[in-house]
Amino acid sequence: MSEQDKYSDVESAWLTCKHNHIGDTVTINIAGTQFRTLITTLNKLPLTRLGKLSADFTYIAQPVPNEIYFDRDSMYFRPILNFYRTNILHFPHDLCVPLIRLELEFWGISECDLAPCCQEILENFDILEKEKGKLEKEFNSFKTIKTTHYEGGCESWKQRVWTFLNDPTSSRGAKVWTTFYLLLLFTSIWTVALDSIEGYRVERPVNTSLLKDNLQFSDHQMLYLQKGSHPFLIYADNVVTSLFTLELLVKICVTPDMRGFLKNVFTIIDLLWAVLHWCWFTMYMTIIDTVVNLGSVVPVFLLTFLGMMSLSLRVLRLSRIVCYSSGLQVMILTLKASGKEIGLLILLLLMGSMVFGPLIFYAEMSVSSPNIENIPVGFWWAVVTMTTVGYGDMYPSAVSGYVVGGVCVVLGMVFTGLPISVISANFTKYQAFARSIRSQERKGKTGETGMEVR
Amino acid sequence: MSEQDKYSDVESAWLTCKHNHIGDTVTINIAGTQFRTLITTLNKLPLTRLGKLSADFTYIAQPVPNEIYFDRDSMYFRPILNFYRTNILHFPHDLCVPLIRLELEFWGISECDLAPCCQEILENFDILEKEKGKLEKEFNSFKTIKTTHYEGGCESWKQRVWTFLNDPTSSRGAKVWTTFYLLLLFTSIWTVALDSIEGYRVERPVNTSLLKDNLQFSDHQMLYLQKGSHPFLIYADNVVTSLFTLELLVKICVTPDMRGFLKNVFTIIDLLWAVLHWCWFTMYMTIIDTVVNLGSVVPVFLLTFLGMMSLSLRVLRLSRIVCYSSGLQVMILTLKASGKEIGLLILLLLMGSMVFGPLIFYAEMSVSSPNIENIPVGFWWAVVTMTTVGYGDMYPSAVSGYVVGGVCVVLGMVFTGLPISVISANFTKYQAFARSIRSQERKGKTGETGMEVR
Amino acid sequence: MSEQDKYSDVESAWLTCKHNHIGDTVTINIAGTQFRTLITTLNKLPLTRLGKLSADFTYIAQPVPNEIYFDRDSMYFRPILNFYRTNILHFPHDLCVPLIRLELEFWGISECDLAPCCQEILENFDILEKEKGKLEKEFNSFKTIKTTHYEGGCESWKQRVWTFLNDPTSSRGAKVWTTFYLLLLFTSIWTVALDSIEGYRVERPVNTSLLKDNLQFSDHQMLYLQKGSHPFLIYADNVVTSLFTLELLVKICVTPDMRGFLKNVFTIIDLLWAVLHWCWFTMYMTIIDTVVNLGSVVPVFLLTFLGMMSLSLRVLRLSRIVCYSSGLQVMILTLKASGKEIGLLILLLLMGSMVFGPLIFYAEMSVSSPNIENIPVGFWWAVVTMTTVGYGDMYPSAVSGYVVGGVCVVLGMVFTGLPISVISANFTKYQAFARSIRSQERKGKTGETGMEVR
Amino acid sequence: MSEQDKYSDVESAWLTCKHNHIGDTVTINIAGTQFRTLITTLNKLPLTRLGKLSADFTYIAQPVPNEIYFDRDSMYFRPILNFYRTNILHFPHDLCVPLIRLELEFWGISECDLAPCCQEILENFDILEKEKGKLEKEFNSFKTIKTTHYEGGCESWKQRVWTFLNDPTSSRGAKVWTTFYLLLLFTSIWTVALDSIEGYRVERPVNTSLLKDNLQFSDHQMLYLQKGSHPFLIYADNVVTSLFTLELLVKICVTPDMRGFLKNVFTIIDLLWAVLHWCWFTMYMTIIDTVVNLGSVVPVFLLTFLGMMSLSLRVLRLSRIVCYSSGLQVMILTLKASGKEIGLLILLLLMGSMVFGPLIFYAEMSVSSPNIENIPVGFWWAVVTMTTVGYGDMYPSAVSGYVVGGVCVVLGMVFTGLPISVISANFTKYQAFARSIRSQERKGKTGETGMEVR
Repeated sequence: MSEQDKYSDVESAWLTCKHNHIGDTVTINIAGTQFRTLITTLNKLPLTRLGKLSADFTYIAQPVPNEIYFDRDSMYFRPILNFYRTNILHFPHDLCVPLIRLELEFWGISECDLAPCCQEILENFDILEKEKGKLEKEFNSFKTIKTTHYEGGCESWKQRVWTFLNDPTSSRGAKVWTTFYLLLLFTSIWTVALDSIEGYRVERPVNTSLLKDNLQFSDHQMLYLQKGSHPFLIYADNVVTSLFTLELLVKICVTPDMRGFLKNVFTIIDLLWAVLHWCWFTMYMTIIDTVVNLGSVVPVFLLTFLGMMSLSLRVLRLSRIVCYSSGLQVMILTLKASGKEIGLLILLLLMGSMVFGPLIFYAEMSVSSPNIENIPVGFWWAVVTMTTVGYGDMYPSAVSGYVVGGVCVVLGMVFTGLPISVISANFTKYQAFARSIRSQERKGKTGETGMEVR
Repeated sequence: MSEQDKYSDVESAWLTCKHNHIGDTVTINIAGTQFRTLITTLNKLPLTRLGKLSADFTYIAQPVPNEIYFDRDSMYFRPILNFYRTNILHFPHDLCVPLIRLELEFWGISECDLAPCCQEILENFDILEKEKGKLEKEFNSFKTIKTTHYEGGCESWKQRVWTFLNDPTSSRGAKVWTTFYLLLLFTSIWTVALDSIEGYRVERPVNTSLLKDNLQFSDHQMLYLQKGSHPFLIYADNVVTSLFTLELLVKICVTPDMRGFLKNVFTIIDLLWAVLHWCWFTMYMTIIDTVVNLGSVVPVFLLTFLGMMSLSLRVLRLSRIVCYSSGLQVMILTLKASGKEIGLLILLLLMGSMVFGPLIFYAEMSVSSPNIENIPVGFWWAVVTMTTVGYGDMYPSAVSGYVVGGVCVVLGMVFTGLPISVISANFTKYQAFARSIRSQERKGKTGETGMEVR
Repeated sequence: MSEQDKYSDVESAWLTCKHNHIGDTVTINIAGTQFRTLITTLNKLPLTRLGKLSADFTYIAQPVPNEIYFDRDSMYFRPILNFYRTNILHFPHDLCVPLIRLELEFWGISECDLAPCCQEILENFDILEKEKGKLEKEFNSFKTIKTTHYEGGCESWKQRVWTFLNDPTSSRGAKVWTTFYLLLLFTSIWTVALDSIEGYRVERPVNTSLLKDNLQFSDHQMLYLQKGSHPFLIYADNVVTSLFTLELLVKICVTPDMRGFLKNVFTIIDLLWAVLHWCWFTMYMTIIDTVVNLGSVVPVFLLTFLGMMSLSLRVLRLSRIVCYSSGLQVMILTLKASGKEIGLLILLLLMGSMVFGPLIFYAEMSVSSPNIENIPVGFWWAVVTMTTVGYGDMYPSAVSGYVVGGVCVVLGMVFTGLPISVISANFTKYQAFARSIRSQERKGKTGETGMEVR
Repeated sequence: MSEQDKYSDVESAWLTCKHNHIGDTVTINIAGTQFRTLITTLNKLPLTRLGKLSADFTYIAQPVPNEIYFDRDSMYFRPILNFYRTNILHFPHDLCVPLIRLELEFWGISECDLAPCCQEILENFDILEKEKGKLEKEFNSFKTIKTTHYEGGCESWKQRVWTFLNDPTSSRGAKVWTTFYLLLLFTSIWTVALDSIEGYRVERPVNTSLLKDNLQFSDHQMLYLQKGSHPFLIYADNVVTSLFTLELLVKICVTPDMRGFLKNVFTIIDLLWAVLHWCWFTMYMTIIDTVVNLGSVVPVFLLTFLGMMSLSLRVLRLSRIVCYSSGLQVMILTLKASGKEIGLLILLLLMGSMVFGPLIFYAEMSVSSPNIENIPVGFWWAVVTMTTVGYGDMYPSAVSGYVVGGVCVVLGMVFTGLPISVISANFTKYQAFARSIRSQERKGKTGETGMEVR
């Protein structure tokens, strides 16, 4: 509908009001509040409830002639009546979306007729409700790890052990156990970390020359092959792993729902890790010296690979902390929901490095011995510069390089700033969700008793 | 109007109410809601609709003496009536801007009479609408690259090929093709990247001494002239370029609108690149050795320039990803709209470096062998410091330098933080726009059918 | 209540309005505004005030039959009546929370019946009020350090001295004193700082070889043991400490509330520091040379420990600035309230370093002499990279290391960005709180007189 | 007033409504809308307008007994009436602050009775208005530099020259001139910058040994004393300065308001610079060689000082760009208004460095040759780390140092993040202000004509 049409509507309404008789108006009583309007106004939308009535309203109105009564809220009716007059359907932004929908349905008006700004509000409401629902479900999935499987018909002591091992909030002892468990986890990571320090390793009788000939190991890697792990670290690692294996076995024994337990991602990590670690340990104790002396490629790689897998899995086990920290849960759900923005961030950094990598290489070519020796290294320089890390292993040293570097860092700050600001906004939103979900849960427990009191 | 006047207005209204007769008031019936006010109040603005009526209202009012009826919304009338009383025209902020405009027009009141806070709302509404309209247009321009040119009266198989090559959403095969195309693009960039690594280049018979005498090449540049590209990389690059050239030729054959296609910026890049690459390749294969041996300046520069152009264009071709990622589209439109802020950011960094470059140079003069040897290098140090990149190639080492450095980094953080926060806010706004535009498009398809149902 | 039920409600209301008699409706007069509704609607919630009345309303309504009068606000009644009709209780968001509560209580409706969006508003209001109350208390605790202890019945000159020393706003002299006091504090820190510079220390006759044999001191530590503090610095330090000790003694003499004063955290720091410093100084002057020459471990460690304690305490004394800067007070309260977010930030950095430390070690193993020599050093590299500090003491130099580094920095920016954005939002909120608390205090002083005028 | 009192109020109102006669209520007609309330309710605040009337309202009410009429807005009266009932005075947040004030004044109610949330809104409104007013004034002060001084009764050509030199928007030529002027400014900075590069300087006959004996110049400074500026740079600098001097002289000749012109900060900078430069140049050309050869301290220092002053002033002249970029103007006003936050940022960085400087020194003491050699250097390290610049000139290398570094960087990110987020918010606010001020100016020009049309 064009601006011109609107104006002529306005004009005609005015003319109508000036010359028509009282008989041409109808009074609509909305729960005590009277609205008087022209019948011609109501006729504009003949397929709606009021439009249908406008023809034959006289025999409906009971108390006063020309008056019809509806038991609705006049606050929500006013914008609807104005829609008949102006063809613009706008509800004040502080009205309730479900109530608006209810009224629209009652009066027979489609949501598509809403003004764009109101449609946006309805949409945002729907999106928020959907996101909140999803979040609630995901929060519950974090909890079910602790709380399900209880209903199974198992003996009392099994259930107690299960609760003790899985729910840190169940008792004081369970809390202590969880703390101890997390400490063990950190210990197991630190044994590997300390094992990587050269000074903590011990010499072993190795035929280096043979190994060097057969394999393309770097000097750094050779150094680690020539020396073995310190016996104390191996011992400590075994103690920790034994404890974890024991805990896992106990859990398998007492779980009321074996199937669900084995499907759980944390169980799989634990199980895999235990198997891997003991395999690796057996092999390491028995054949490592022989293997290294023989200098054959495959077993050495296999052992190294097993060791690295064992380590990665013990780092993955850290994810169990997620079950205990609600802040981390919100963070993970935020990252999940911000996949698009993180993708954009990575894409922008990649494209930026594709553009600035070659540029800096060409810009620095005139320098006798530049830090940025080739384009792939330039890609890395661009990433380090755009993220403002700036290690200083590579830096421009010609004037043209300074210019490229300046542009690169400005664009980088913009590129990294924008997606992160969006992800931050998501995080704030999700935190508010989480808070409201938690408070509703609390209310849910007390609300029902309150209902009975009234 | 001063504060004093307002007060006397208030007082006179009160006195009026105390002593005047009922006959001095008029009842205005706005669609059933009655407003009673003093005629003197309405007389204050004699050029508006109500002001004009106030003199001769008696013969208009029909049902009850001293009552006039208007079929308008009472919600929007209340602030207007209050404007007559208080000379302040304020609408609640949750009312609809187009409806406010409609009412102002009806009652004959200018927008300039609105209170400043309301004027701001109207302006922001206009700005948002304008920006949204612009954004919608720009989004469509991204799409038209894919979807236009279809109506041309060309054969069916041509159209099918065209759609296949241009619209990745048209079929499964088109998606695979797009993925393959992007992979090719990356390959073509990597061939150049790998070519820049010294170890991947092969020796060629070059008379270095001659070249060195004639030109001022740096050692690093000489190294690249002495060695040629690896045959495999040249081969791979040619295969990729051939594929692109083929794709371009096919597109030219099947395009239904040759003119529009050739005007398209992506086509121009593709075309230019193909021509440049083949020129460069022909020259490289035939004359490079002769040229390098002869040591004459112009051809060497020409070849190098052609090679660099060929590379830059293949990086520019990466921009084609924009057509496939809506996140990137929003990002580009944000950057376009935030041109002023980016300009401010660059201006601030430039001015900061102009100020802190000389300062750090003088501050570091007392050190025996400072890193910051002269003022132009100080400019670079200031940029690196203000953006918190901090390569470490230059850093202050005197107490005066520490002070300058501290002030520089604090100002830098403020200078870079402010514009980026504004650009981030723009990005969030544009993302919301993009979302609402997309959802309106979706509704647009289903909405019309919904209209008919009612 | 399902969607279906709602709809049937709507339908029945409509049917009722179409066929029932006027006698089935009741008029509720809310301070002059009439609401007419069906008695069946009111019967839906029989335990509320209106529900109870609906049975026997006839004998209550006085002026007009079928009308009951309540002296309440119709604005707040409208949503309540709509709740009877639609089972959704929603108040517009610009209504006042305490008034909403008052009305709910009056009409006998539970807060649990509110729609989720409104419940959130009520909760946020409660949370804000609670936080504001807490903040007000904490602000006052900062102030009480200055203003309490006055009422004690001590002589006039004591009180004057006390006020002079504690409240910088009391007089011009007190302001000068505070400035002088802060300058002294900085001087006392700088004496220690200058003492650590090698060039400012003087030789002392020490039997180094003996000391070296007995203890595992590093070369750097030996250097400090071999040289003594410069006499001038010791002299300056003593002057400053004497002044502080004097101030403390004066304060102890004039304090009106000895107990509260000694419990104050700032007094404890001052006291401890004075004692420590004089102990250390006596020992240092008398026995240091003997001790160092003898090379026995315990006294050397004791002296060093005392010296370090003395320094830490003088840095802690800097916290006294908090009493003078309201910005710092808000900052500290923000950090207190954001404990969870700071914990999350640290947890994320720790977990990130646990994951990326080993990864970068394995990724860099293939390099002959990598910077990242072992996993614990890798943890540090991960922290430096994730926070974008990027010293450059360690950096990846293999392609696999570049990939790990890129992922690490992207995740790091997200990990650090999110909690800091939440803490920033808290800071903004707390600043607004502080502003409103201050303005209320100002009003509180003038408001009461204003009350009397009216 | 306590919660208990409120409740009893509610109860009494209810009891009143149940048992009292109709005669105890009064009807207040607010411009057609009727409010009926108990006289006892109005009696609660006897000193207000309604309270005073409640005793003797019968003889005022004219049309109907027990009804008083006021020509006010019922929207603003409703909360006021509710205040009589509940003792809580709350206005919906979308009402207009000036109108609320007008109504409060009319009904004789003090602003102090408002609920805290509403008081905050009124205060924020006042603060915003004040800030906006201040901003408008400051914006105008930027403009007056260009536009004042015109009214003086000077000849036409003088005015034309003046406008040409000062207002770049006045004509096309003025724009070109401004661009040329800014280019000159950059040139004049670059001449100094290039002069600092060693390779661009020329040898001069200097008796170095003599100078070295007399003064404590560093090697770096000696290098600059031994070599003189390149003649071309001196020539270029003189040309540029001559042009600036000429422009200044022309301005002085044509200025219509000599006094205001000479008081202007930009004029003072220009004048000072011109004088300084020519002094320095004369001295440099005549006596520099003699002075350096003689090796006397004072003249060398004087010459160096003059040269440095000349440079700083030419950098200060860059501030003239502020007159041309509205973005910069907003930035400067933001920084002015955020003085408190910038102070907090600097204070936090200072305190952080005071704490972490000594900590890192002690933590690194066990390393044989640490980078962080003493505490003052540790202060610098702390600043570089907290701002995430991370040059890498100093970095921890012991485990205890890693821990201190980690804590330092986390706290630093929080410390720098919070004030900058507040300053960013200020910047956004000021940008919105600037936009609205500019649009009001535009309206101001067209608005008045619009007034006449109506």
